[in-house]
Amino acid sequence: MSEKTPEKNASTTAEVARGEEAYVVRPELVQEIIDALDAANIHRVEELVQPLHHADLADLIEMLAPEDRKILIEIIRAEFDPETLATLEEHVREEVIEQLGAADVAAAISELDTDDAVEVVEHLDDSVQQEVLDAVPAEDRALLEEGLTYPEDSAGRLMQRELVAVPSYWTVGETIDFMRAAAERDEDELPEEFYDIFVVDPRHEPQGRVSLSRVLRTKRPVKISDLMAAEIRPVPVTMDQEQVAFLFRQYDLASAPVVSEDGRLVGVITHDDVLDVVDEEAEEDLMRLGGVTGTDLYRAAIDTTRSRFPWLVVNLATAIVASIVIGFFEATIQQIVALAVLMPIVASMGGNAGTQTLTVAVRALAMKELTASNAMRIVGKEALVGGFNGLLFAVLVGIVAWLWFASPDIGIVIAAAMAINLVVAGLAGVAIPIGLERTGIDPAVASVVLLTTITDVVGFATFLGLAALFLL
Amino acid sequence: MSEKTPEKNASTTAEVARGEEAYVVRPELVQEIIDALDAANIHRVEELVQPLHHADLADLIEMLAPEDRKILIEIIRAEFDPETLATLEEHVREEVIEQLGAADVAAAISELDTDDAVEVVEHLDDSVQQEVLDAVPAEDRALLEEGLTYPEDSAGRLMQRELVAVPSYWTVGETIDFMRAAAERDEDELPEEFYDIFVVDPRHEPQGRVSLSRVLRTKRPVKISDLMAAEIRPVPVTMDQEQVAFLFRQYDLASAPVVSEDGRLVGVITHDDVLDVVDEEAEEDLMRLGGVTGTDLYRAAIDTTRSRFPWLVVNLATAIVASIVIGFFEATIQQIVALAVLMPIVASMGGNAGTQTLTVAVRALAMKELTASNAMRIVGKEALVGGFNGLLFAVLVGIVAWLWFASPDIGIVIAAAMAINLVVAGLAGVAIPIGLERTGIDPAVASVVLLTTITDVVGFATFLGLAALFLL
Repeated sequence: MSEKTPEKNASTTAEVARGEEAYVVRPELVQEIIDALDAANIHRVEELVQPLHHADLADLIEMLAPEDRKILIEIIRAEFDPETLATLEEHVREEVIEQLGAADVAAAISELDTDDAVEVVEHLDDSVQQEVLDAVPAEDRALLEEGLTYPEDSAGRLMQRELVAVPSYWTVGETIDFMRAAAERDEDELPEEFYDIFVVDPRHEPQGRVSLSRVLRTKRPVKISDLMAAEIRPVPVTMDQEQVAFLFRQYDLASAPVVSEDGRLVGVITHDDVLDVVDEEAEEDLMRLGGVTGTDLYRAAIDTTRSRFPWLVVNLATAIVASIVIGFFEATIQQIVALAVLMPIVASMGGNAGTQTLTVAVRALAMKELTASNAMRIVGKEALVGGFNGLLFAVLVGIVAWLWFASPDIGIVIAAAMAINLVVAGLAGVAIPIGLERTGIDPAVASVVLLTTITDVVGFATFLGLAALFLL
Repeated sequence: MSEKTPEKNASTTAEVARGEEAYVVRPELVQEIIDALDAANIHRVEELVQPLHHADLADLIEMLAPEDRKILIEIIRAEFDPETLATLEEHVREEVIEQLGAADVAAAISELDTDDAVEVVEHLDDSVQQEVLDAVPAEDRALLEEGLTYPEDSAGRLMQRELVAVPSYWTVGETIDFMRAAAERDEDELPEEFYDIFVVDPRHEPQGRVSLSRVLRTKRPVKISDLMAAEIRPVPVTMDQEQVAFLFRQYDLASAPVVSEDGRLVGVITHDDVLDVVDEEAEEDLMRLGGVTGTDLYRAAIDTTRSRFPWLVVNLATAIVASIVIGFFEATIQQIVALAVLMPIVASMGGNAGTQTLTVAVRALAMKELTASNAMRIVGKEALVGGFNGLLFAVLVGIVAWLWFASPDIGIVIAAAMAINLVVAGLAGVAIPIGLERTGIDPAVASVVLLTTITDVVGFATFLGLAALFLL
């Protein structure tokens, strides 16, 4: 078996081509590496790890148990790829940085583009961060420290400083010669990859952009000013990353210029940074709706418990509120125990119907599809959907209750309560997120708990209340 | 006021630069356009709409009420931007296509890149699709029909056919001259935007890729074969779009070559296609967790009701199962009504704690962070988290119940039930999505309903069961 695997790693491209799986770090590979680590077969580990792309190596490191991870890092320490550090998940990265030590981390950071370097240091504890920064060469440190002055999740944190800017009076020929000369002087003078050339005036304010594919198809004597698209959308350093992602999505950008407060071109954000942002923002919304503060896959159980605890306390409080509502009707329940049996149905259906509406509304708000322009129309529509569903499920559940307890009266009461709760659920499901957004609160955070509190309270109160009025 | 607004539209770039909002289609603009439509002021509508980017125009069209939308489309029909059609949300696009008619739609489609053209026709009803295809020129039709043969959500549907491929023995100079000559012959011979040049052998199989930034920094005599990165990751036409997105995310790709089953280069997927896929997939997961089949913001209330109905029926069924469990303990509840008051707390806390775990697990599965390599470790960790939370909330809720009903016995029973249900919730929250994924079911679809059924049944059964055993 051990003879076959180097080939297997080498042939991943062919495997992908067969259409099976795009994923390189398969469980079998992880298991082989674990086996080699357990057998202390350093040579074999190196052989397996060496062909991996830095992003695949990061995945592998994340997937190992902490003990195995430590050993692997020691083995690859000498040729540790700085890009791997930038790609690691935050909690795992912290561990790895601690193990590597400030000097090695600083050396790695110096080789990264500024955006990746900032990404590595921004989440470090203050003391570790200072230690690493002190070990970084002075010129890099200045850029890093400037990067850290921008607000978290802002364009300033996402951008890289490395970019290509030319004056508008240059020709295509001069621009190409400039890049060839720069590359010959020093491989690192130009960014590793870039997609647009930015046109700047003498104050270094962006005037336009030219995509590389346009430069390449144009003859040498043509002026850059004749080629450039003047419709640039400069991104201020302080712009929130969600807005940046919106710009890329809306205008299919490969890269966007970032400008300082006085309008000068200071950096560039590229499509791959934005893809990460989109993943991050989607994850954030999903997690917040699920009542979690973030993916905590790699955190210790005790840390995870601590981070999930507050949300559960809030839910306990709302559950107690619902129970207090039930408590008002203790006497009614004592006389008709069927009510206790049926009441969770009304509350649960309200919660589920409301969550459907809520999910659509939270996503639409995040994607800027639900705005002041169409809010009232959408609220009206959701009330209508709630009404339709209310009627349908009133009939359904009314019949079930009637047959179950052989009482048409109980059927009528639960049907009425269900109809009311589903209309309330539809309205609350869209009104709560819109309301939270207007007051500046992220609708994904608090919507669910508010919604289920309302549907529980309304569900229990209408059902038990109607029963107390009409069945006793 | 009407004098100011053309300026306002023109100055959106400056507004963006001020860092406020990246969004161009503000409610005020929408309102102005609605006012102009209501006043039948065609000239004013054209003036307001004309400066909009095609993606902004699509947003505007989506935001209008159906009546206003119809009028706007008539006004802009003559100069309708084909790209706008490709950008519109599916349900709105259907309406617009119906209004424009097959001939106009076919004309628009002919101007689009193949990927956008396929996107426009793929969701049409069969009869409309045939009508449109018949109106498209023969050569475009062949490409479109081929595009439609690829499975939905596959690389074949995402790719555009327009790409630049050169043989490996060409030099940088020859490559640049080739592109200049092609552009001079016909503006449309090259793709509008491209990021990589693909190197192919005589069979048109991809051998490597060269990014444009590499071409531009290299001197004319250098051979393409000396520049190219041989580590290409060709995407088979049949690859699922989720896998394609993974490749772009993992390897920071700007574009990727797509190959037919016999390995020939047939198309290219670009970063902007992938950003749409990532949005789509994130939305799908979010929607499925929320029990919705898709964003139905633009669908009629009756269609929305119909699409949400099945999920609510499933939930009704599970709610009835929970009620049946409660039904077994009717006699117990009759004797101690406090049980009816308290029982929703146990079930609700189980549901919430389980949903937290579930959310993390579903996302980790989608991002390929939770695999066979670390599944057992994560399951163990979640059981531990459930145990910790179980202890904490057992104490909390036990004290509340004891004080509320002045009965330490009720406190002990609810504490025990809570602890059991939270451990079960943690285990089920991670085991259910993993299990569904293994059996090939999307964990986002069915996880929530399975989980809450389990936490409801276990919650009610343990609490009422323990009460029946120890309190009577």
